[in-house]
Amino acid sequence: MSAALRAYLPSWIVPVVPEGRVLTDSAIVVEGVRIRALVNRSQLEIDYPGIERIELPGHALMPGLINMHTHSALVLMRGLADDRPLMQWLHEYIWPAEKKVMGPDYVRFGSRLAMAEMLRGGTTCFNDNYFFPDVTAEAAVATGMRAFVGMPVIAFPTAWADTEDEYFRRGLAVHQRFVDHPLIGISFVPHAPYSVSDGAFRRIRTLSEELDITVHLHLLEAPGEIETSRTEYGMHPLDRLQSLELLGPRLLAVHMTQLQDADIARLAREGVHVIHCPDSNMKLASGICPVAALDRAGVNVSVGTDSAASNNNLDLLAEVRQAALLAKVASGDPEAVPAARALSMATIHGARALGMEHEIGSLEPGKQADFITIDLDCIETRPLHDVVSQLVYATPRCQVTNVWVRGRQLLKNRELITLDEAELRASSLPWQQKIHDAVRKLEVHHVE
Amino acid sequence: MSAALRAYLPSWIVPVVPEGRVLTDSAIVVEGVRIRALVNRSQLEIDYPGIERIELPGHALMPGLINMHTHSALVLMRGLADDRPLMQWLHEYIWPAEKKVMGPDYVRFGSRLAMAEMLRGGTTCFNDNYFFPDVTAEAAVATGMRAFVGMPVIAFPTAWADTEDEYFRRGLAVHQRFVDHPLIGISFVPHAPYSVSDGAFRRIRTLSEELDITVHLHLLEAPGEIETSRTEYGMHPLDRLQSLELLGPRLLAVHMTQLQDADIARLAREGVHVIHCPDSNMKLASGICPVAALDRAGVNVSVGTDSAASNNNLDLLAEVRQAALLAKVASGDPEAVPAARALSMATIHGARALGMEHEIGSLEPGKQADFITIDLDCIETRPLHDVVSQLVYATPRCQVTNVWVRGRQLLKNRELITLDEAELRASSLPWQQKIHDAVRKLEVHHVE
Repeated sequence: MSAALRAYLPSWIVPVVPEGRVLTDSAIVVEGVRIRALVNRSQLEIDYPGIERIELPGHALMPGLINMHTHSALVLMRGLADDRPLMQWLHEYIWPAEKKVMGPDYVRFGSRLAMAEMLRGGTTCFNDNYFFPDVTAEAAVATGMRAFVGMPVIAFPTAWADTEDEYFRRGLAVHQRFVDHPLIGISFVPHAPYSVSDGAFRRIRTLSEELDITVHLHLLEAPGEIETSRTEYGMHPLDRLQSLELLGPRLLAVHMTQLQDADIARLAREGVHVIHCPDSNMKLASGICPVAALDRAGVNVSVGTDSAASNNNLDLLAEVRQAALLAKVASGDPEAVPAARALSMATIHGARALGMEHEIGSLEPGKQADFITIDLDCIETRPLHDVVSQLVYATPRCQVTNVWVRGRQLLKNRELITLDEAELRASSLPWQQKIHDAVRKLEVHHVE
Repeated sequence: MSAALRAYLPSWIVPVVPEGRVLTDSAIVVEGVRIRALVNRSQLEIDYPGIERIELPGHALMPGLINMHTHSALVLMRGLADDRPLMQWLHEYIWPAEKKVMGPDYVRFGSRLAMAEMLRGGTTCFNDNYFFPDVTAEAAVATGMRAFVGMPVIAFPTAWADTEDEYFRRGLAVHQRFVDHPLIGISFVPHAPYSVSDGAFRRIRTLSEELDITVHLHLLEAPGEIETSRTEYGMHPLDRLQSLELLGPRLLAVHMTQLQDADIARLAREGVHVIHCPDSNMKLASGICPVAALDRAGVNVSVGTDSAASNNNLDLLAEVRQAALLAKVASGDPEAVPAARALSMATIHGARALGMEHEIGSLEPGKQADFITIDLDCIETRPLHDVVSQLVYATPRCQVTNVWVRGRQLLKNRELITLDEAELRASSLPWQQKIHDAVRKLEVHHVE
């Protein structure tokens, strides 16, 4: 019994592997949840006579984008308190608001709203870090979107768990429940070195090896972190993680704005994956991750939006452009992170960090059918001298037209299929009010 | 005889002056080409009984964006040669391509395509720097868009002029022709200190005072410029401009990535306006304009996209977000350039630099009716905790719905009124081919 075969025929196919390649006059053949083949248009009728053909003139077709770091439900705090120092932002706004609203309903609605935005922007997979990961996983399954959710570990009580033991117990129950689901991956998400004990890190180290999963960790986000670690643990955070045997290819280190040259060599040697969130790092004035040097050293760098509370969008296409632009100006090298490399960071590099490089992140026969189409026949993308450059540097996310995950269409001509846009817009209002009431009054003025 | 009165009633009005103000339950009353009043909704029927009312629920209404630096026709080279060092980019791609295509037809079509993109992104006025400024001005008048065009002066022959004298003669003819047109402003656009002679600068200084116009100049764009000036003129470019009596409030200095603290104080003292092009500076790895310090010192900073050949878009809303983000990370201060200040940079600061602060750049009674509406009732802008923050940090340009210049509507529900989108898309193809042929073959591959 074989699934129905379909051929998609856009004007351009960007398979991402090999990097920089653009195919014209070509088709991608999909069989059920997987990619069967990439074939020349003239060969299609010969190899697959009578196959259903979906013509997509003026469109580019490429792998779905992978958002490697977000806290999806925090989209409900978008714009709540901008232009403030990190600690004021957290203590006076985000945490009080979270305290008031945190729970399964908040996480469910926030995850759905975030997925709606991500799908409309061409993201097919997101690597989440938030409380109630079971709820986010349920929402992703209901939507048909691919998600990695995390088992949170943090040294203080939250609505999700009171004690270290409870964090592990609840997290492992989520793992057990979703471990075999084809759309869901599970990782540990210890919050950060300054908020997780050595004991908890040791359990994470042991369990992540036993369960063969990744450890998704905020690391070296802002300048104070190194000094805090020296005071509290007598060493640099990277030394501490090494002593805890966590510095290795399971580690997905998010932010990494405070790196010296020696650190870069060490990350390359240990096979640590770096997740770069340029917009959030810029907006919070945290610092700049040295992506050009990491890339040169062979470190696998991928890209995330962080949450919409510190970004303030979930636009991975814009984030990848930012990664390319920031790498150039920070390194003084206009050739750093060229467009094709930036596109790899948004796709196959993310897949590699998640241990999914044989399943997603590029268009290759046998991989899962996670792909998107982008309409390039718009004023904003005319003329078209270079398809890859256009996708990275010029294309706004609203030109993403169609999205498929595991062969199932989730966005069709910009309409969401498994989520109800109008309902999401309307249902955001009571949440907006609730959060607003929790922290302050909106400062609006009337004409006198 | 009075023009017809119309009242626009969006959910929010952001007049920009005073900075940060958001009006709800309010209307803007337009009479012909000018703003008559901003009034409370309840007062509207009393002051203006029977007035035509245009309801815009879910929309924000704000002044049109002012793109303070671009070379609009260069949109035709979008993506032609990215990720290359500046000199290779210029010598091997942009200049050879320009040599092949430069002329009135190229400038006319490029200007129209650029205006289409700018209007669709909420830009109502652009400050241009390119050859055949008469052609760009004609195209702007035909479109109904506001444009400042420049009289180019550069020390080598181009398709526009062969000699220094001819640059002045042709430029001054453009000035004479358009000086009284309500949509057009004229400035001098000497290319840069390293490509314009002292003699030409002296003529510009004299003429700009006589004609009461601005001088729009690339200045301190990249590191080499200071050394070149020291070698050639025995002084720093700012000293040279001061000796030429050009350092003053007529000077619109574009880029300014190579500034020391003393330079900042001097710019503030002399009243020089700085035009910041963050995307272009980042992409070409030129350096970072110290916007936070300039702003603190009281220098009037506005924002431009530069050309789509080095950006690669003409998205001023994204540029303003970039200005805010880059200022924060470069200064280490998350409070630098808050959202409301960023919005001022995109509107009233530009108007001030152009000497038009009493005519455009904010919504105030008596000013010209250059304004835009933005639909905030979209997935990407839900929830809505802060209107100004949402506009700057979260809103994609495709949510710009309507645009008016001098009271005339140029974009209506995202459709251009005075430009033909389909025709522009189609006509871009022969230009793409011509430019492509001029420099290289597109690197596309077929499946074997």
